[in-house]
Amino acid sequence: MGSLLNTMPERHFVKYTFLKLDPAWRRLDPDERVQHKREFMSACEDFASERLLRAFSLVGTRGDADLMLLAQATNLEPIHKLHVVLAQSGLMHLCQTPYSYLAMTKASEYSDESRLEVRPAHGKYLFVYPFVKTRDWYRVPPDERWKIMQEHIKVGREYPQIDLNTSYSFGLDDQEFVVAFETDDPAAFLDLVQRLRSTDASAYTKRDTPTFTCVSMSVERALNALDGSALPVAV
Amino acid sequence: MGSLLNTMPERHFVKYTFLKLDPAWRRLDPDERVQHKREFMSACEDFASERLLRAFSLVGTRGDADLMLLAQATNLEPIHKLHVVLAQSGLMHLCQTPYSYLAMTKASEYSDESRLEVRPAHGKYLFVYPFVKTRDWYRVPPDERWKIMQEHIKVGREYPQIDLNTSYSFGLDDQEFVVAFETDDPAAFLDLVQRLRSTDASAYTKRDTPTFTCVSMSVERALNALDGSALPVAV
Amino acid sequence: MGSLLNTMPERHFVKYTFLKLDPAWRRLDPDERVQHKREFMSACEDFASERLLRAFSLVGTRGDADLMLLAQATNLEPIHKLHVVLAQSGLMHLCQTPYSYLAMTKASEYSDESRLEVRPAHGKYLFVYPFVKTRDWYRVPPDERWKIMQEHIKVGREYPQIDLNTSYSFGLDDQEFVVAFETDDPAAFLDLVQRLRSTDASAYTKRDTPTFTCVSMSVERALNALDGSALPVAV
Amino acid sequence: MGSLLNTMPERHFVKYTFLKLDPAWRRLDPDERVQHKREFMSACEDFASERLLRAFSLVGTRGDADLMLLAQATNLEPIHKLHVVLAQSGLMHLCQTPYSYLAMTKASEYSDESRLEVRPAHGKYLFVYPFVKTRDWYRVPPDERWKIMQEHIKVGREYPQIDLNTSYSFGLDDQEFVVAFETDDPAAFLDLVQRLRSTDASAYTKRDTPTFTCVSMSVERALNALDGSALPVAV
Amino acid sequence: MGSLLNTMPERHFVKYTFLKLDPAWRRLDPDERVQHKREFMSACEDFASERLLRAFSLVGTRGDADLMLLAQATNLEPIHKLHVVLAQSGLMHLCQTPYSYLAMTKASEYSDESRLEVRPAHGKYLFVYPFVKTRDWYRVPPDERWKIMQEHIKVGREYPQIDLNTSYSFGLDDQEFVVAFETDDPAAFLDLVQRLRSTDASAYTKRDTPTFTCVSMSVERALNALDGSALPVAV
Repeated sequence: MGSLLNTMPERHFVKYTFLKLDPAWRRLDPDERVQHKREFMSACEDFASERLLRAFSLVGTRGDADLMLLAQATNLEPIHKLHVVLAQSGLMHLCQTPYSYLAMTKASEYSDESRLEVRPAHGKYLFVYPFVKTRDWYRVPPDERWKIMQEHIKVGREYPQIDLNTSYSFGLDDQEFVVAFETDDPAAFLDLVQRLRSTDASAYTKRDTPTFTCVSMSVERALNALDGSALPVAV
Repeated sequence: MGSLLNTMPERHFVKYTFLKLDPAWRRLDPDERVQHKREFMSACEDFASERLLRAFSLVGTRGDADLMLLAQATNLEPIHKLHVVLAQSGLMHLCQTPYSYLAMTKASEYSDESRLEVRPAHGKYLFVYPFVKTRDWYRVPPDERWKIMQEHIKVGREYPQIDLNTSYSFGLDDQEFVVAFETDDPAAFLDLVQRLRSTDASAYTKRDTPTFTCVSMSVERALNALDGSALPVAV
Repeated sequence: MGSLLNTMPERHFVKYTFLKLDPAWRRLDPDERVQHKREFMSACEDFASERLLRAFSLVGTRGDADLMLLAQATNLEPIHKLHVVLAQSGLMHLCQTPYSYLAMTKASEYSDESRLEVRPAHGKYLFVYPFVKTRDWYRVPPDERWKIMQEHIKVGREYPQIDLNTSYSFGLDDQEFVVAFETDDPAAFLDLVQRLRSTDASAYTKRDTPTFTCVSMSVERALNALDGSALPVAV
Repeated sequence: MGSLLNTMPERHFVKYTFLKLDPAWRRLDPDERVQHKREFMSACEDFASERLLRAFSLVGTRGDADLMLLAQATNLEPIHKLHVVLAQSGLMHLCQTPYSYLAMTKASEYSDESRLEVRPAHGKYLFVYPFVKTRDWYRVPPDERWKIMQEHIKVGREYPQIDLNTSYSFGLDDQEFVVAFETDDPAAFLDLVQRLRSTDASAYTKRDTPTFTCVSMSVERALNALDGSALPVAV
Repeated sequence: MGSLLNTMPERHFVKYTFLKLDPAWRRLDPDERVQHKREFMSACEDFASERLLRAFSLVGTRGDADLMLLAQATNLEPIHKLHVVLAQSGLMHLCQTPYSYLAMTKASEYSDESRLEVRPAHGKYLFVYPFVKTRDWYRVPPDERWKIMQEHIKVGREYPQIDLNTSYSFGLDDQEFVVAFETDDPAAFLDLVQRLRSTDASAYTKRDTPTFTCVSMSVERALNALDGSALPVAV
């Protein structure tokens, strides 16, 4: 458990930023779109040079978001600055942010496997949702809660190809947790989630939507999916 | 039941994409609208050459959507690509996506008749809604759930002119299921749904809206319903 | 009761379409507005030549809708076509459809007085709302439901100046019913609705909003209320 | 009680119209803004020449509304006409109506002090909210309801500097009541509302939001608060 | 307790105004943006010359708000006037106000430490949320409520680096309270909020969202974060 760690690894802020393009952007001429993408990529590269940043496309999986950035840092300042610089890119001048989740990593009270960092990309899909438990959950005695969570974790372990990353948002944002599952196998993930509905833990779910199917790719490929045009090779 | 299948037919992704036109599109000159429709049709034809794609009009049945595309594929890549290419069409530059549902087919635990593919068009109307059951449902013992579902299925069988297709969204999207009924007889379907309200299964419904009445037609006819103009015959 | 009818009158589709004008329309020059209204009226007249179409103004009674069309037909095709043609009018190019209800008439199981058609205009006001009952309602034994409804109907009969028209939306749209009361006496209607709150039936209401106060008038007068300008007499 | 009145004073319609300016209006040149305000004032003056109309500013108290008009008439026709004429003013061409409440006055069954008319301005602030009671309220026996309301009224009487005006919306609009408190002393009003939370009546509240703090002023001053410019004295 | 104060310090209005920039503002030329920021700063400085005004950036912590102003005054007039003058700035012509909370300070019935004024800036982060308790809370006997609150306060005191400021909105706005926590240590605050979920008080929470992570800074720095450009030094 977290309290047994004696090296005190640092907790990280994790920011999920979902973008939805104004269709007007696609009407701009190609050179301008190339310029806008380069500005956006440049902001991402500055941040990613020392920290984790991952990109995902939601084109074809959601109607209300096109691209998601996951940024991680040990304090809020670089995350604030990343978004200040992103906002200067031409792309963000024709873009909305329909969803945004701020969270922190934290040692889990139920599992030794919890991580204090999001891992670099290792799966084709990331399934993300904000999560709120019912207040009744917090009135269950701790040892009973522990037992309920062990059942939940045990079912999860039957799907070793699926990796879970939970971060915490209490007081920082509207949800309590941001849950992110990573896998190459969406069908197995669907089956796992359906099975978890019958666990005792499931009865204490207050909200677990919206649920985003995010396709992992480089920032450049996620940008190219916005207008179907590959960036020309820089000379 | 699904587990008895020994040929392991492949599961499919099913994507429902609902479009709402910006009224400004109708103010464009006719040649431009023709061009935009051709671009949209071309994206659909590429996808449909090897996979199932169906189109529906919602003009006159809903106020918040005009056209729906149902696309099916054995993996997410072609569905992602279809939406990348659609987004390049002039039509999508003046279009919103107010609703979008991602799901997968799956063998049913309650019925042998479930299919792992959506069938090609065979009815005039498709009635679609996202479906979420209450968490209490998942706490009912399996054999009692099975009995409850048999009653539900039995009522459905009294309406042989109505065909049901259920797909699964657990973990992939906000709903648990996407339910689609296909028929030529809306009055019979209305009567069926009203009768099902009195079954035990109905008490476990948490959400079954929005409910869309979709009129089946070719992509071309669905596009023509947007501005009331038939495409000129290509020469 | 419906099952006693031996002449099998035809059931009708009923479509309620609520429109909200973009304020930009009012900035157009007067000739253009006249042209737009004529196009809109022409679409209505085509439909109304063989079927029922009624118009209502909501200017001054709602903030989110200005005009409502009630269209009735024995099948969906002419209703689809009406909205295709309406969409071509200049007015609809600067108009949203914030609310839209699709329903069908049906013989009532509780009253012999139910109609399978909406009547032509005979009252100054129409009060419309989408209606959803709680699922508990459908678990009440049929004869108890019948008794509860008789009490409800009996209170209604004390207000003979108020006429009720219920249509059914199960499976076709988000609500279960569309309820429309017609009267010249809004104060009596308000008193009736307040009294009905104490009936047993009222406890089974899940949703009965939004509630629209609609002022009955000709299509032409409802259009003129949008910009305060009477159409010039056609020469 | 209402039924004891033998002079049958007339009931009034009361309309609350909340306006939110499009920021683009503030970018217009000053002469145009002066013209738009005059048109708006003229519509108000026509109505107010024979009926009650009051204006309130919400600049600084709400983010989603800037100005509220309260209009009262014995029938709907002049209220419909007021909004037709207002819509012709340049101001309304760059304005939304985010909230709108239609109600009627009615003799209270709980108090002799109820009024069938809204009084002319006599307080600096009006606190307005739409009000819906739980359906359980309507199942409480009448004499118990009466006792519960007397407790509620008694607490209110300890704050004589606060004046209450309740109007009724059953069947006319989405809420059951529109409640309006008028006072010069917002701190006392806040304390009263907090105290009322502990009365039995409070447990039967289903919805009492949004809650608007409205600053009473002339139409002209409320318009001037929109762009910070006083109207020039007419010559 | 408040009632023991014999010096009667004055209660204050507290206004939280959240702004979301239209991306179009960032497309303006730099000189215009400089001018718009100066106008905005000037309005803030006028108010702040005699009263408390604090600024916060939400860039990078929320997707639906960019900047928050907290303004405090002993009556509503200067708050109304502040927003009238702000609205005249070019910045507000391309800005929405997605959230707005009006509240008053008040002596707490549970703690001697409550303040009748918001303190000047002393922490790097402010965590703000509107708060509504369940109606059941108000039916708990006063002495039991007092005990429940003491447990809540006691947990809070274990985090001395976190400062709490509660203001009251009963009857003035949609929420009952506006809760603001100030600290330099977000991780500790997250842990505190998670711990408070298990207190008895937590079970009486009806709504505590949206929850805003606000980064404290000068008005000038918060404005510069909108376009990433520092204001040139005035000459």
